[in-house]
Amino acid sequence: MDKKSVNIGVIGCGTVGSSFIKNLTLKKEIIKRKIGIEINILKVFDKDKSKISQFKDICANSPDEIIENENIDIVVELIGGTDYAYEFVKKAIENKKSVVTANKALLSKYGNVLFKKSKSKNVYIGFEASVAGAIPIIKSLKESFLANKINKILGILNGTTNFILSEMYYKEINFNEGVEKAKKLGYAEVDPTLDISGYDTAHKILILAYLISGKLFQIDKIFIEGIDKIEPIDIKFASEFGYRIKLLGICKKEDKKLEIRVHPTLLPKSHLLSLVEGVNNAVYVEGDLIGKSLFYGEGAGGNAASSSVISDVIDISKKIVNKGFVEENFISDNSLYLKPFQEIETNYYFRFTAIDKPGVLAKISKILGNNNISISSVIQKQDNPEKAVPIIMLTHKAKEKNVNKAIKKINQLDVIKKPTVIIRIEQNIM
Amino acid sequence: MDKKSVNIGVIGCGTVGSSFIKNLTLKKEIIKRKIGIEINILKVFDKDKSKISQFKDICANSPDEIIENENIDIVVELIGGTDYAYEFVKKAIENKKSVVTANKALLSKYGNVLFKKSKSKNVYIGFEASVAGAIPIIKSLKESFLANKINKILGILNGTTNFILSEMYYKEINFNEGVEKAKKLGYAEVDPTLDISGYDTAHKILILAYLISGKLFQIDKIFIEGIDKIEPIDIKFASEFGYRIKLLGICKKEDKKLEIRVHPTLLPKSHLLSLVEGVNNAVYVEGDLIGKSLFYGEGAGGNAASSSVISDVIDISKKIVNKGFVEENFISDNSLYLKPFQEIETNYYFRFTAIDKPGVLAKISKILGNNNISISSVIQKQDNPEKAVPIIMLTHKAKEKNVNKAIKKINQLDVIKKPTVIIRIEQNIM
Repeated sequence: MDKKSVNIGVIGCGTVGSSFIKNLTLKKEIIKRKIGIEINILKVFDKDKSKISQFKDICANSPDEIIENENIDIVVELIGGTDYAYEFVKKAIENKKSVVTANKALLSKYGNVLFKKSKSKNVYIGFEASVAGAIPIIKSLKESFLANKINKILGILNGTTNFILSEMYYKEINFNEGVEKAKKLGYAEVDPTLDISGYDTAHKILILAYLISGKLFQIDKIFIEGIDKIEPIDIKFASEFGYRIKLLGICKKEDKKLEIRVHPTLLPKSHLLSLVEGVNNAVYVEGDLIGKSLFYGEGAGGNAASSSVISDVIDISKKIVNKGFVEENFISDNSLYLKPFQEIETNYYFRFTAIDKPGVLAKISKILGNNNISISSVIQKQDNPEKAVPIIMLTHKAKEKNVNKAIKKINQLDVIKKPTVIIRIEQNIM
Repeated sequence: MDKKSVNIGVIGCGTVGSSFIKNLTLKKEIIKRKIGIEINILKVFDKDKSKISQFKDICANSPDEIIENENIDIVVELIGGTDYAYEFVKKAIENKKSVVTANKALLSKYGNVLFKKSKSKNVYIGFEASVAGAIPIIKSLKESFLANKINKILGILNGTTNFILSEMYYKEINFNEGVEKAKKLGYAEVDPTLDISGYDTAHKILILAYLISGKLFQIDKIFIEGIDKIEPIDIKFASEFGYRIKLLGICKKEDKKLEIRVHPTLLPKSHLLSLVEGVNNAVYVEGDLIGKSLFYGEGAGGNAASSSVISDVIDISKKIVNKGFVEENFISDNSLYLKPFQEIETNYYFRFTAIDKPGVLAKISKILGNNNISISSVIQKQDNPEKAVPIIMLTHKAKEKNVNKAIKKINQLDVIKKPTVIIRIEQNIM
C-alpha cells in the first residue's frame, strides 16, 4: 500500500458532473479520513467552456488531456449519449484507466466491448449511477446478493414517466397535460421521447439483466412500449379493479430462459411498487435466498447521482491502492437465451370500445375462449345504448401470441369501434 | 495474490448456521467462478452434537478447535447471546481471525471493544446479517452512502412485532391473540420478551446509529418502549386519523446531537414504511445527497440471513486474498452527544379515558396549553354520557418533557379514569 492517493479526471460538467465535483470537493477530507485515500480531481473537461471556467487551473482543453494523462487513474464520464462517450471511455480503458459512468445508453449498447476490454486491461468500470440514481442496486446485485439466483426484477426506473403517471392518477389529467407539467417542473426534457417511449427504462433493465445473467442483450431484441397510449380512462378502470399503472422494466429468469421487456403494467395497489410516486425510482428483486426485496429512492438529480458516482470512485480507489485485483466475473451462461416476446405468459387488461348492443360480450368472449384466454373480471358500463362504450376485461394468465391473435380478430368485428387497448399485468408478486 | 482459497470455521448450527452451511456448500462453485476464490468450511461446532453429526469429519469437539486453528481465516459466529459469543469472538480476533456474525446483542453491547480489537489485529468483522436479515443496509451505509451525511434512519427491524401489529390491524385481534398467532406460526419464540419489549429493535438501531456516527451507545442510555401496551382501540383510532402503528427504531442526527429511541409509532398511511406487513423488515434512510430512500426485505429466516452472512464472508475473503487492507474507519466525533429523551420533540397521539361530561375537554386542553402543547385534531365519541369514554388527540410538535408533565397532571384529574395512552408520531417523512 505505497500509493495513498488517486487522481481522477471528469469529462462532462452538466447537472451530474457539476454536482459530483462540488460534492467530492466538499467531502474530500471526510472521505480521506474514512478510507485513508486522498482523491484528487486533476482535470475537468466540458465542451461548453462556460461550465468549467470556474475550475480555472484544472480545466482541460480537450478530453484527450484527461484520457491520455499519465497521472490520472480514473476517468469519470458524465457527458451522456453514445458516440463521443464511447470513444472516450474506450480510449480511457485502453490507456489503463478505470472509468466511472452514469451512462446507461452507452453501457446497454457497448457494454460487451467495454467490460471485456476493461477486464483485459485490469481496470474497472463503475456504473452505480447508471440505474436508479442514488439506489445502490448495482452493488447489491453484484456483491450483497452474489450468492443468490435472482429470478425476478421489476423496476420503476424512469422518474419522468412515473411522475406523469402519478399526476394522471391523482390530478385526473391526460397524458399530454402530464407531459407539459413535467416539462414545466424540470422533470422532463424539451424532447422527452427517450423517457416516454420506454427506451431509457430499457437501457436500465438491460443493464440489470446483464448483472443477473452475464449476458447483455441489444435493445432491438426486446419488447418496449411507452406510456403515450395510456388514457385517463385506463387509469380509472385499473383503479376500480384495484390496480395502479406503472411503466416497468421487467426481467425474469427461469432455467435457461431470460425474459426482458418494458411496458406500462397494472400492479396491485397492495404492492409497494405501485405506491412509488412522482419522480422516484424503485427496484423490486426476488432471489432464491433473499426472497422478496425492494429498494426505493431518488432516481435522478445531481446529488442523488453524484452519491453513486462518488461511491464508485471510492470503491475503485480502494482497489487501485490495494493493487491485488479480485474482480467479480459476470458469468455468462451461453446456453441462456432470450425468451421471444410472443412466448411470454401474463395476465392482461383489455379495453374494448364496442357498440352497446346485445351479443357483443358473447362475440368477444368467444374469440378469447377460442384462443385459450380466460376472463377473470369484466366491467361494462351500459349507459349508452347503440353507442360505443368501453368494456374492460381482466384475464387469467394467457400467452402473448394468443392475445395478439385474438385481439386482431376482435378488432375486425363490426361492433368494435377502436383498436383495443392492451395493458399487461403483474399479479401475485408480493 | 498468491493465496486463492480462504478457510472458515462455523460456531453455532441453528437455523441460520445450518442454512449458511447448506447454501455456501451449494454455491461454492459459482462463488469460486465469480470471485476466483475457493471458500472452504474447515470446521463446524455446536454444543448440541446432533446438529453437526451430519458433517462428520469437519465436526469440531470444541469452539477452541476453530478459534485456535491456524488454518482458519474467518470464524462465523452464529450462536447468539452475549456471554459465550463474546469470549469466542474476542479470542478469534486475538488469534488474528476475521469474524462474521449475525449477533446484534453482542455487537450492541461489546462492539466498542471488538471493533477496536479487530482494527489493531488487522482483521475484519462482518455483520450484515445482524440487522434486517437479507437487506444490505450495513453495506449500503458503509460503502454506497459513504459520502452522505445520514440524518435520519427509521427502521422496522423486528419481524415478530411487525407481524403482531399487522395481525392486530387486519384481523382486529388484541395483542395477546397476536402473540399466540405469531408463536403458532413460528414467528415468535416461546419467550418472546426480547422482541415484544423492543430490545431486539434497540440492539439493531444502536448498530445503525454506530454506522452513521462512529459512536456505539449502550442500550440503557436510550428510551425503549415495546408493543405490549398497544390496544385494538389505538390501532382503530390511529387508522381513522390516517395512520398505522409500527414499532420503529429511530435514529436522528442534527449537528452534534444524536437521537436514538425505540417505541410504537404512528406513521402516515401514505408512507411506504407503514405498508410493510407481516414479518418483513424495512429501513428508511435520509441523507444529504441521496435524499429519501427505503430498503425492504425479509428480516429473518435461515436463507435471508445466510445470504448476508455469505456476502460478508465473500467480502472479507477478497480482502484476505488481496492482502493490502484499506478499512473503512468509523470516525467517532467526540463532541457528539446523545440527546436526552426528555428533550426530543415530536407529534403525539394521546388517548384519554375520561368521564363524558361537560368541561372535560376544556380541562384537558388547558393543561396541555399551559405546557405548550398544541392540539391538531380531536375525536371524542359522545355516546356514553357519565361513563368513561375515549378521547383521542393528536398534537403539533411538542417536547417530551412537557408532555410528561402535562399528562401526569391530566392523569390526576378526577374525570380521568385510566392512565393516558401516549404514542409518538413520525410526521412529514416522505
